[in-house]
Amino acid sequence: MKKFINNPEQVVVESMKGLELAHPELLKAYYSPNYMVRSDAPVAGKVGVVSGGGSGHEPMHCGYIGHGMLDAACPGEVFTSPTPDQIYDAAKKVDGGAGILLIVKNYTGDVLNFDMAAELLKADGIEVEQVIIDDDVAVQDSLYTAGRRGVGATVLAEKIVGAAAGAGMKLKELAELCRKVNSNARSMGVALTSCTVPAVGKPSFDLPDDEYELGIGIHGEPGRQRLKMEPADKIVERMIEPVIEDLPYQSGDEILLFVNGMGGTPILELYILYRKAYEIAIERGLTVSRNLVGTYMTSLDMAGASITLLKLDEQLRNFWDAPVKTAALRWGM
Amino acid sequence: MKKFINNPEQVVVESMKGLELAHPELLKAYYSPNYMVRSDAPVAGKVGVVSGGGSGHEPMHCGYIGHGMLDAACPGEVFTSPTPDQIYDAAKKVDGGAGILLIVKNYTGDVLNFDMAAELLKADGIEVEQVIIDDDVAVQDSLYTAGRRGVGATVLAEKIVGAAAGAGMKLKELAELCRKVNSNARSMGVALTSCTVPAVGKPSFDLPDDEYELGIGIHGEPGRQRLKMEPADKIVERMIEPVIEDLPYQSGDEILLFVNGMGGTPILELYILYRKAYEIAIERGLTVSRNLVGTYMTSLDMAGASITLLKLDEQLRNFWDAPVKTAALRWGM
Repeated sequence: MKKFINNPEQVVVESMKGLELAHPELLKAYYSPNYMVRSDAPVAGKVGVVSGGGSGHEPMHCGYIGHGMLDAACPGEVFTSPTPDQIYDAAKKVDGGAGILLIVKNYTGDVLNFDMAAELLKADGIEVEQVIIDDDVAVQDSLYTAGRRGVGATVLAEKIVGAAAGAGMKLKELAELCRKVNSNARSMGVALTSCTVPAVGKPSFDLPDDEYELGIGIHGEPGRQRLKMEPADKIVERMIEPVIEDLPYQSGDEILLFVNGMGGTPILELYILYRKAYEIAIERGLTVSRNLVGTYMTSLDMAGASITLLKLDEQLRNFWDAPVKTAALRWGM
Repeated sequence: MKKFINNPEQVVVESMKGLELAHPELLKAYYSPNYMVRSDAPVAGKVGVVSGGGSGHEPMHCGYIGHGMLDAACPGEVFTSPTPDQIYDAAKKVDGGAGILLIVKNYTGDVLNFDMAAELLKADGIEVEQVIIDDDVAVQDSLYTAGRRGVGATVLAEKIVGAAAGAGMKLKELAELCRKVNSNARSMGVALTSCTVPAVGKPSFDLPDDEYELGIGIHGEPGRQRLKMEPADKIVERMIEPVIEDLPYQSGDEILLFVNGMGGTPILELYILYRKAYEIAIERGLTVSRNLVGTYMTSLDMAGASITLLKLDEQLRNFWDAPVKTAALRWGM
């Protein structure tokens, strides 16, 4: 294993420190338990938007803390759910009196621990809503997951809900908005290589030199099938068609098209994928009015990519377009 | 070789197409010869800022076309200099009557071809200035290069000079400003793995599983030495200390600290590097007033990183802070 790390057990804390040193105007780190909050938290009268999950998916979630997105995030150890006390402490720090929205990716540990944190918060008299993100069409049930896994839609939900919270939307409406994003979004990913968890020191799974895995999970969970390596355009077809068919997205729909790199894939290749995904979307009669292309939700150093479609309407489009200032996503500020 | 590509010979064109489809409001692509220009070019009365170089370093340079940065960029084939006609055609398209500034990384082919393009432009009566970027302290002379190589400072120069051009700075002053950025900047990179050129299909060089290369070039050119793999903090020391000593950066200096990923390194690790680089800078009495952490100048899929320091003053800081809107760097717009 060759990685830029010191002690595998310090990876999360050291990366948090680096993020805080780079962006003190945006966020502040707390340790034992580990979490980060926006530097001006709590914002009085605003719903606190909180997410979290295992580390190894950076910039998600801490890279999305700031203005117009998350108020707090709880990074667990690599590929390990954050504990209820992490989530509870983080939420307390960003409680501005208008309640807390927890955005939870659908992994069994995350769901359980966010649920326990929600109970603790409610016991303190804090109003809490939880929304589960489960946009991955690849498989039903999986390692770590009952039902569908939460993947790329999480980034889009955090952006849109964060903008709405900043605009003063109340907790119940925000939760509804977040559910709408999730119900309008579908995703699928592929891996060309495994990732390597620092504390393990060897690849999480074996993938032969001439094969890729369609429908991979963000922790390397098995997907739909192993296939012989193919041209990029064919891989895009295999990813996007089940995504389109699932909602289904229909001719005339307006969408946001999100092509995401898994950590080890360069931007050169992501735009090659975007090109084909866009062409297929247009052939299907979809209007691609917004897009996001880059490395936004990773699986450590995995070479791979995912495609997410989000059906837009005026409300979602406007909140997407709203200014945002975080370490990893920024415009208009 | 596992990459998201179709035909190795179409990598550059297909990636350009994807970039244009994703950002039509920012840029427009031309083919045969290949180049991209800002969508509203030419801007009357503004100096056209043009860069380019071999592909494989994305998002550089096309990802930096837009408002407040580059007006045009010429991507050569992978790791191959753009031709004089590419550069000439691109510059003609963004000639707003105030002259053209060519920002050139110091590689022999680039220097020659930009020089020929400059002659062609001058023959058309267009005023041209060229600035060579050569910030890499790793080696003197190298494969493809007489003198020092141009690396991370290129991104910073394009941002700062682009802002100044947008603010109406004249050609001679802009060239001076660009030379100032270059003379205030120093860099060093390391590779943990080789990159693989799509048309070659195998790694450009061999790097054993327990070694890394200090002072690597962005095309995989040999660096200073091969070392046994070490903790991240030690690697940062070996990168940043020669950088600090070279200018030298002195106690009391204000700097921008840029930690760059080479394409295959995830953001989790880049922040671990930033943390240590920041600590060393502070120990040396430097004030880190600005920073950039991310994947901004790559070597295809290479796992690796580089560190660039830029000594700031009020002028450089203000142009750095100015709004920018490009595919890969964006704030304030």
